[in-house]
Amino acid sequence: MVSKKQIQLVNSLKQKKYREEHQLFIAEGAKIVPELLRSDIKVEQVFATREFLERHTVGENIECIEVKYNELERLSAQTTPSDVLAVCKIPVHVFDKKVLKGKLTLVLDDIKDPGNLGTIIRIADWFGIDTIICSKESADAYNPKVVQATMGSIARINLHYLELSELFSDLNTSLDPGKSFPIYGALLEGEDLYKKQLSEEGIIVIGNESRGISGAVEAFVNQRITIPSFAHYKSGKGEAESLNAAIATAIICSEFRRG
Amino acid sequence: MVSKKQIQLVNSLKQKKYREEHQLFIAEGAKIVPELLRSDIKVEQVFATREFLERHTVGENIECIEVKYNELERLSAQTTPSDVLAVCKIPVHVFDKKVLKGKLTLVLDDIKDPGNLGTIIRIADWFGIDTIICSKESADAYNPKVVQATMGSIARINLHYLELSELFSDLNTSLDPGKSFPIYGALLEGEDLYKKQLSEEGIIVIGNESRGISGAVEAFVNQRITIPSFAHYKSGKGEAESLNAAIATAIICSEFRRG
Repeated sequence: MVSKKQIQLVNSLKQKKYREEHQLFIAEGAKIVPELLRSDIKVEQVFATREFLERHTVGENIECIEVKYNELERLSAQTTPSDVLAVCKIPVHVFDKKVLKGKLTLVLDDIKDPGNLGTIIRIADWFGIDTIICSKESADAYNPKVVQATMGSIARINLHYLELSELFSDLNTSLDPGKSFPIYGALLEGEDLYKKQLSEEGIIVIGNESRGISGAVEAFVNQRITIPSFAHYKSGKGEAESLNAAIATAIICSEFRRG
Repeated sequence: MVSKKQIQLVNSLKQKKYREEHQLFIAEGAKIVPELLRSDIKVEQVFATREFLERHTVGENIECIEVKYNELERLSAQTTPSDVLAVCKIPVHVFDKKVLKGKLTLVLDDIKDPGNLGTIIRIADWFGIDTIICSKESADAYNPKVVQATMGSIARINLHYLELSELFSDLNTSLDPGKSFPIYGALLEGEDLYKKQLSEEGIIVIGNESRGISGAVEAFVNQRITIPSFAHYKSGKGEAESLNAAIATAIICSEFRRG
């Protein structure tokens, strides 16, 4: 049985303002919730049907509320609720520029669409990229739509929201004085992604869905890359004008990792 | 000014049943509609605001109705309507197995999500794949959500809905007697996509979002490929369990085309 106060709290977490106030987010579904329970994410409450609870173990220190399916309908952010919903603590990842050393990191310059952000988090996880830095204007990673689109990958990625110009401004001095730290950006004009020598260390900047990488961020890009379309290869002119931001991310990450 | 009858027709086209009955579909937006007007797609009607019509030319043989923005709200399938909506003829592409010769073709085995289908059509267009064959159970490509997600690419791709087992059953005899026509399938167990020699001719089968490639179709796959995750490379076990179907399509197409 779920109380009015619980319904209120869970529903408030669909809004960023209340997620920030309570430092909580919601996740749903028999695939994602068990993954979060196994992860480092602190799950505070689980609302689940008897059927779910018969098949899954919820830790003893987690408040577990058995509910009817129609009660889940009053909590869920989904069109079709599943049989479990968890309230989780937003993890605190302290950012230190040193974590950038020796590995690849994604930087998102205003990714606005929650579905794209969730998909990009899942792609990062697939390709073993464990840190994503989002500009402050990017979609909120703890928006229920993002959480669902990550399919559980959100539990394994360190997410940071930073002012990108501050991040980039003293990167070279703080990481490797005298050497420029590779900052890759996918741009319309750049070196052919498939022909360029790609490093195992660096930042890959992904631009906003409609305007791409902003001028302020582009100024810091020192490795300009471009994904040539096959039509471009054949005829010198492209057909599809652009790729979706998440699709471009997948192609770029695949190319970095294929070795 | 838009009539009641026009509102009724346009709204009926949000349902597959009426799209099939009228052989019409709708497309919206100042990016997609002008692309359709320039393409081989037969546009029958354009509903647009004065602002749109001042900036774009609509052919003389197309019925063009100037409307107010609030009238577009009554027609649109979008949450936020744009300033133009077109009613278009569903193109008729006659299928002949011979078109498969000498090039790559995508076959979709029950892609159900309209957003995924639209994104896959856009990816195909980017990589110069001009034919997509969908199983009969796949999402309808003329669903407004699919059309929007293609960003205009739907005008350049030949789409067919076929019974896949019929397609595959006599492929070798009809195309290249005595030689097996390459049918690639992305499966959990298969050759490493990044290491396999990929041909310039063949079919790439993409499976359903949750169950992958069906058993009936897998039986015809003669080139089993798998996308290794980077985590898999490093530790022998994957982190993210799977990739979204459209993301997998992008990675596979990129690998085929990079040469």
